[in-house]
Amino acid sequence: MNKPNIPKGTRDFLPEQMARRNYIFNTIRDVFHLYGFEQIETPAMETMQTLMGKYGEEGDKLLFRIQNSGEKAGAAPEKGLRYDLTVPFARLVTQYRNEIHFPFKRFQIQPVWRADRPQKGRYREFYQCDVDIIGTKSLIAEMELMHIVADVYHRLGINVCLKLNNRKILAGIAEVIGEPDRLIDITTAIDKMDKIGKENVNTELIDRGLSTEAVERLQPVLELQGSNRSKLAQLRDVLAESEVGLQGISEVEQLFDLCDASGVDLMIELDLTLARGLNYYTGAIFEVKALDVEMGSITGGGRYDNLTGVFGMPDVSGVGISFGADRIYDVLTELDLFPDDVLQGTKVIFLSFGEDELRYALSCASRVRATGISTEVYPEPAKIKKQLAYADAKHIPYVAIVGSEEMQNAAVTLKNMLTGEQKSMPLNELIDILHRS
Amino acid sequence: MNKPNIPKGTRDFLPEQMARRNYIFNTIRDVFHLYGFEQIETPAMETMQTLMGKYGEEGDKLLFRIQNSGEKAGAAPEKGLRYDLTVPFARLVTQYRNEIHFPFKRFQIQPVWRADRPQKGRYREFYQCDVDIIGTKSLIAEMELMHIVADVYHRLGINVCLKLNNRKILAGIAEVIGEPDRLIDITTAIDKMDKIGKENVNTELIDRGLSTEAVERLQPVLELQGSNRSKLAQLRDVLAESEVGLQGISEVEQLFDLCDASGVDLMIELDLTLARGLNYYTGAIFEVKALDVEMGSITGGGRYDNLTGVFGMPDVSGVGISFGADRIYDVLTELDLFPDDVLQGTKVIFLSFGEDELRYALSCASRVRATGISTEVYPEPAKIKKQLAYADAKHIPYVAIVGSEEMQNAAVTLKNMLTGEQKSMPLNELIDILHRS
Repeated sequence: MNKPNIPKGTRDFLPEQMARRNYIFNTIRDVFHLYGFEQIETPAMETMQTLMGKYGEEGDKLLFRIQNSGEKAGAAPEKGLRYDLTVPFARLVTQYRNEIHFPFKRFQIQPVWRADRPQKGRYREFYQCDVDIIGTKSLIAEMELMHIVADVYHRLGINVCLKLNNRKILAGIAEVIGEPDRLIDITTAIDKMDKIGKENVNTELIDRGLSTEAVERLQPVLELQGSNRSKLAQLRDVLAESEVGLQGISEVEQLFDLCDASGVDLMIELDLTLARGLNYYTGAIFEVKALDVEMGSITGGGRYDNLTGVFGMPDVSGVGISFGADRIYDVLTELDLFPDDVLQGTKVIFLSFGEDELRYALSCASRVRATGISTEVYPEPAKIKKQLAYADAKHIPYVAIVGSEEMQNAAVTLKNMLTGEQKSMPLNELIDILHRS
Repeated sequence: MNKPNIPKGTRDFLPEQMARRNYIFNTIRDVFHLYGFEQIETPAMETMQTLMGKYGEEGDKLLFRIQNSGEKAGAAPEKGLRYDLTVPFARLVTQYRNEIHFPFKRFQIQPVWRADRPQKGRYREFYQCDVDIIGTKSLIAEMELMHIVADVYHRLGINVCLKLNNRKILAGIAEVIGEPDRLIDITTAIDKMDKIGKENVNTELIDRGLSTEAVERLQPVLELQGSNRSKLAQLRDVLAESEVGLQGISEVEQLFDLCDASGVDLMIELDLTLARGLNYYTGAIFEVKALDVEMGSITGGGRYDNLTGVFGMPDVSGVGISFGADRIYDVLTELDLFPDDVLQGTKVIFLSFGEDELRYALSCASRVRATGISTEVYPEPAKIKKQLAYADAKHIPYVAIVGSEEMQNAAVTLKNMLTGEQKSMPLNELIDILHRS
């Protein structure tokens, strides 16, 4: 028989990896709760009607389709696995519009599936971790997401920079360089600034049919220097003729004011080259990068004005960001930032030298556990070396050893696995020590 | 455009339902951790080779197959969605046998998919919540799962009875009634005792080809009365000639002894009609029912001696149980046992009368939130009635109202939404009150 295996691009998570992932998800979830966001879940499968045409032609090809089963052909709608959390969310908002109270602050942490070619860091099944506020145009929503970014990365110990842009500023730029209809070409090209450099971006813009003059007029904008506020001031001159451009500047300024008023502790950089691939952003655009390691964006998102239009519910504005759990995992690993106790589940394990001692250990363990301490009993009176190896492999910090002498004295010997110290003591003392450590 | 919808048999979980589900999952997870179990996850997709032939002919038909995408036909293995958590777990244990430390105490909470005909209480996507100890034959493993059942249902406030049987006792019975090879026919039939009654079970046994004599000899066993220990004593006589039967009795007696030694607080009933559909149980068989409501089994499982044999790894014994989250949800709903604060996420929301007050509220909210209190700010200075309706819909227990007077006095007005009491106070006092309530 062949060794069993899993489909390409998918992953198993064994306990240690799972514990580290849970540390990330729990940290993010705690911060979401702190700001009053509520969790939802949607099914893994959506109808193909819901999914198709939402991700462009390329995206459609990457949908995993599910064969109908147990139904007559044509009797049931075609189904596919969800490709992201945004489209199911838009579908849900439309479907339950009368039950949801707006502004709706929701988060969702679930896997998505894409039939992408698997490669390093790209999987066919991966978790997305989305947080959105919909049903309000208030910039306080943007501000709140920036607070969340600050809090999450502060708790994780990752130094980050949040890059900020505004789609309206990009539209203003397209307008003033005389190419108002080429916004998408322009943003698609300058989005690559970081990756391919200015020269190549300019070449691409020419290739996309922009006039040399327009590309030339664009250059000062790409080279703005100074503080965020000073960049905005310079931009205000450049975009003086563009109503939408000035509106974008005003939004960014207001957002900075709100951040000041509420005291957000975050490095923020106005970055006009930031466009992100998705064309549905209509206001703020966010991207977060870790400062101390080379890694792509670890969080990103923005404001969209028409989330649910495609499902027949117009004028729903919202803003959302998505945390990239896999990349955050890689950042924490590379910078060695996972706390020491992430892998610690069980706090104490009882080991015993024989059947009678084991029986005694069971009652001791029940008493320790009743005080809320995660407690195991090695289930067989195996060789102590084997029992200790188990404790070691599970990163259990304390072992309680029960031999005949301990039993006679109604005691246990507690050993600190880190320091090697050990001492015989009554059970109450052991409980005290474990609660205090 | 049609109103968007989801595939038949699948579900969306909106915030309130999600909060109640999380209460169940968190309670179960906390207890698993208390006993030192570690979480794992496996991919939604498994190869068809892993899945096929594991669930019987009927099960094979209920597998959801995934169309290969982006691969040449035949280039990639056929894939399907996981049907349960047991087969992926067996596959994982085989695959990572050299990385896992045994006894392996794992739990897994993930959705599974079955192309069953959807009906009330039966879904095509539902969560399973499995906990297993593998790699030890010690009955302490069984005992520990019984403790977990007791702790989980104690925390949830559900009164339960755990029904216990042992496959070896059933084998012994088949032996002594002279039908040792008909064990599966016998157990399949008597498993239905609760549902169809004794007469119909007897008819079915005859239909399945058992002799009238054998069926007659079976009757006293099905009618055993008295305490568990007394039933075991009677059985010891009946099964005196059967080695395997006596072994089963001895296992159950030892298990009762272990439960006594460790002080398990659980109503346990030896039930010889308990067989459960699955034929792979080899020792203990468990089933848990809620006492105060008519509902099927809410937890079940047992000992198996050959989990991974089908993947080429023989002699792996383990014991496991599965908690039925959907049925537990229904029990808690029917008995009105969800705690009042399950739906409470945000503790306080700041409402404001104008833009300036809103700005002031933002800084107040940041200070409250920094102390760890889940805090919202209504993002627009909308009509107070609208803001209050939002607070009400989200079950937020306190609102902090900021008007111009409050701003001038560097104060806020805190209103208790339950009692209607309200009072103006400095922010520090508000923080104190919220921490104490």
